[in-house]
Amino acid sequence: MYRIGIDLGGTNIKAGIIEEEGRIIRKDSVPTGAGRHYSEVIRDMANLATGIIEEEGISKEEILSLGIGTPGSCDNRTGMLYYANNLNFHDVPMRAEMEKYINLPINIGNDANCAALGEYHGLDEKMDNVVFITLGTGVGGGIIINGSLYTGTNGSAAEVGHIVLVKDGKPCPCGRLGCWEAYASVTSLIDMSREFIINNPESDVAAACGGDSDKVSGKTAFELARAGSENGKKIVDEWISYVAEGIVDMINLFQPDILFVGGAISREGDFLLEPIRKYVERGSYTTGKERTRIEIARLGNDAGLIGAAFLGD
Amino acid sequence: MYRIGIDLGGTNIKAGIIEEEGRIIRKDSVPTGAGRHYSEVIRDMANLATGIIEEEGISKEEILSLGIGTPGSCDNRTGMLYYANNLNFHDVPMRAEMEKYINLPINIGNDANCAALGEYHGLDEKMDNVVFITLGTGVGGGIIINGSLYTGTNGSAAEVGHIVLVKDGKPCPCGRLGCWEAYASVTSLIDMSREFIINNPESDVAAACGGDSDKVSGKTAFELARAGSENGKKIVDEWISYVAEGIVDMINLFQPDILFVGGAISREGDFLLEPIRKYVERGSYTTGKERTRIEIARLGNDAGLIGAAFLGD
Repeated sequence: MYRIGIDLGGTNIKAGIIEEEGRIIRKDSVPTGAGRHYSEVIRDMANLATGIIEEEGISKEEILSLGIGTPGSCDNRTGMLYYANNLNFHDVPMRAEMEKYINLPINIGNDANCAALGEYHGLDEKMDNVVFITLGTGVGGGIIINGSLYTGTNGSAAEVGHIVLVKDGKPCPCGRLGCWEAYASVTSLIDMSREFIINNPESDVAAACGGDSDKVSGKTAFELARAGSENGKKIVDEWISYVAEGIVDMINLFQPDILFVGGAISREGDFLLEPIRKYVERGSYTTGKERTRIEIARLGNDAGLIGAAFLGD
Repeated sequence: MYRIGIDLGGTNIKAGIIEEEGRIIRKDSVPTGAGRHYSEVIRDMANLATGIIEEEGISKEEILSLGIGTPGSCDNRTGMLYYANNLNFHDVPMRAEMEKYINLPINIGNDANCAALGEYHGLDEKMDNVVFITLGTGVGGGIIINGSLYTGTNGSAAEVGHIVLVKDGKPCPCGRLGCWEAYASVTSLIDMSREFIINNPESDVAAACGGDSDKVSGKTAFELARAGSENGKKIVDEWISYVAEGIVDMINLFQPDILFVGGAISREGDFLLEPIRKYVERGSYTTGKERTRIEIARLGNDAGLIGAAFLGD
């Protein structure tokens, strides 16, 4: 039996056929065309899914369900996508609209939640409780409890980026002050690097960007730090201190079997994880018992597609 | 059928017989005698439980299980109490020791977790997801997910007081800096009131304690604020801002059906809850859907005893 996953992004729509074990056997994508009416976007999603099903030559009877991972705030119980900023979607009846084209059980879930579910299905040993965080433009995540995605009473739970780390601190895009996201996102790392360049125009950090603070990326400080730059290390250390404190919070709340760190920046690997593990050792509220493993997420960009397919399981 | 609950406190041991519906039909208590060897304390717990069972005249066949709520860090899977500071207990095989006296299924749980479970069983309508926080010497809590107490992979989850609200802030008894507990406990409210008196020895706050900052209690600022004191209101407002930000964090993570606020200070009722609800309205990450109800815990001191009885359900 197969499941269909759809990953609705701001730039592309991806669809895939997923085997029982979580392997993608066929996938395809089309541009999202963000800004269009939802009915057009959802029609394209349906066509993409129908297309790969036909190409693979599988019958509807072999497909268990179709799941859609979407940015924003949604609820699988109502089938509604309430709000997705980058798509300009408000109160979209996503399940009902999709059912016009495809006669399968249809589930919807938040994209970061889907990535969490994907990583859970990618585990090579059985674990019940998994926390996944993704560091990117923002800080997102998903929480698996007793083998199921936890979405709370209204579908919006696990907004891990929107817990306060610095009371009355930096404004967060969500409207609150001092959220974890405002400090631990890659956006924040870039801001920290830029600020350093503006304050230290003669530094190696400035030189690495040809003096142009607009050329800073999430890699800038990491590359310098790896090469031995004290300035690079200072920026990286400060940013990691924010990432790590929030991860300790997650462990003190969830004590999961494993906590995955995802997002492109997670390619920094142990250079990122080792200092985080030290913070966790110092700050987590556990007394010598089984401790949470902290690892880089394994499925990369496919996590959301795979997880979407397993929504509703 | 009945369940037996035991609430092991720093001062007293309480035991109760609990009906299916969560009502206590008989209870008794003895002093804990903290500082004694665990074998003596557990023997007294067993005698207390055996005593009320005999007095009530129920047979062992009518009893489903016995549950023990304990301070500190424990794991029901191993039956171990790893650490309880105020009892000076380390690595106590609590279940095994209790089984020497009582032939029933025996469960153990953290006291704040038990109180959460008690409040859950005291609900008058069905809800799946409940967060309970208790404001006292520290900030504790418990989390019910899909009708079960969530304790994570090692029994230590739901340490709600030990998430950072002020990075690199005030030292917390747990060893971290800036935990929610360090700001939102009643201990912190008392500290804030004392500091105000020391800085303002001619104020109404100082007068309310006869000028003796050691006479400050958790009620001092609240009583003044209720009576219209601007100074009292200022202290209460600041303290509530810390309480409320942490509660918003809990909602953004768990989106429970209901969040209970417990501890003696919760007798302040709506005077405490109304400002918290305003923070939640502003800061929580929900878009017009079903929202978490925020209420004062209902069972008071009995919550832990009742919840202990339902451990392992």
